[in-house]
Amino acid sequence: MTTLSDESLDDLTVGGLKILQAKHGYRFSLDPVLLSGFISPVRDCRVLDLGTGNGIIPLLLAARSEALSIDGVEIQPQMAERAGRTIDLNKLGTSVRIVQGDIRDLPFGGLEAAAFDVVTANPPYRKPGAGRLAPDNERSLARHELAGGLDAFLRATELMLKRGGSFYVVYLAERLAELLAGMVSLKIEPKRLRFVHPRAGQAARLVLLESLKNGRPGIKVEPPLVVYKGAGRDYTDEVLAIYGLEERPGERSGWPEPARRV
Amino acid sequence: MTTLSDESLDDLTVGGLKILQAKHGYRFSLDPVLLSGFISPVRDCRVLDLGTGNGIIPLLLAARSEALSIDGVEIQPQMAERAGRTIDLNKLGTSVRIVQGDIRDLPFGGLEAAAFDVVTANPPYRKPGAGRLAPDNERSLARHELAGGLDAFLRATELMLKRGGSFYVVYLAERLAELLAGMVSLKIEPKRLRFVHPRAGQAARLVLLESLKNGRPGIKVEPPLVVYKGAGRDYTDEVLAIYGLEERPGERSGWPEPARRV
Repeated sequence: MTTLSDESLDDLTVGGLKILQAKHGYRFSLDPVLLSGFISPVRDCRVLDLGTGNGIIPLLLAARSEALSIDGVEIQPQMAERAGRTIDLNKLGTSVRIVQGDIRDLPFGGLEAAAFDVVTANPPYRKPGAGRLAPDNERSLARHELAGGLDAFLRATELMLKRGGSFYVVYLAERLAELLAGMVSLKIEPKRLRFVHPRAGQAARLVLLESLKNGRPGIKVEPPLVVYKGAGRDYTDEVLAIYGLEERPGERSGWPEPARRV
Repeated sequence: MTTLSDESLDDLTVGGLKILQAKHGYRFSLDPVLLSGFISPVRDCRVLDLGTGNGIIPLLLAARSEALSIDGVEIQPQMAERAGRTIDLNKLGTSVRIVQGDIRDLPFGGLEAAAFDVVTANPPYRKPGAGRLAPDNERSLARHELAGGLDAFLRATELMLKRGGSFYVVYLAERLAELLAGMVSLKIEPKRLRFVHPRAGQAARLVLLESLKNGRPGIKVEPPLVVYKGAGRDYTDEVLAIYGLEERPGERSGWPEPARRV
């Protein structure tokens, strides 16, 4: 078995997939799940996931379509290695590949510039010094801009995307101005945008964004995505549907830790 | 009486106010009404409304508070003159002043740079050549960027606002990226944002935005504002409340022409 003593093997609930995660390090949240639900069909596309972490986005996209090829880049050797084992465990090695490296050094490892139809990212949300720094390095790197901020993600996107290629990102709503201004300056044109509100009547926490390299200006702001029903901890039907849980609502768990230990 | 033959005198339904509008020229829409509902209290503030048109924003703000002073700048002599008569008609001449001129030429007419606590604007939404050009010049100038686009409005805002002053604007949601990137480049920091969706489940048409000159980055995206109930033409309770119609819903009319002839 490929699980180490400090790891857990968690059931993704999507397509029978399983994911390896550090017990006390970075564990994926609802955010990449919502992003994968926001991404248009990617069949026959070459996809690059920047800062792939434990490989959750490649895993979710591979579960949706077997025809596409997905590369995930992760700076932390331990997480990249674990993501690789997760891919093997799910028998997705033919379509998904994990490459260890720093997105600021791209292109490397057989990943060519301007070769991808789609780039995806769930970048760290917080600047170093903002908010509580997670005590273990794995979580700190995943959550804080210690190894390349938003700017590094946008530059890598601009470099690796084909002309006319799509970029999908989930980010903090409070940093929307930085995100849009950074994209516009690199001619990655924001095209579709959806805000994620924890509850109806509450401010948005996240924004889901699709942009187009060298696209024409013009944004569609979709109706908001609400995560929880009323004041409780039950997911709305839309989130359950994204999560693939619509037919077994009794099994769902809370945000931000939807995965269940198996 | 001060109404000309090609004008109508319309009941604003807010605070018993009346407004003069050209019968076949530019007539105000729901948009400035929604903007005025989005603006925080402005008591004891000096307010400048850029591109004031028929004076609807100064009129609505003056109706909310008698303590503030409001200047409205309008490029079209005929509209500026009509806005002035509307102010007189409502006996608001002590707090509201209309100045005719081009915002690209500011400061002028006793309006000093860096002297305003609040700047408001409902700029033209469309680039020249985009969409149908209104046949009469009055409407064309009000709706299309024939005399200064978004950039001219942002530059005038930056020039006229005090450090730490607030800018309130209503604009097309599809031009959000341009709006935010333009503000960020002038250090007018977007702080609060609300999207206006015609109906729940439909894409946003407008964005209401509050920004702060020399403010710190960080946006709050408020829950969306929905204009119509269900699939019909009845306003939602929130729009009725903004419009001051919550106690007489039978009197409401449709978007974008909520004013009624008197």
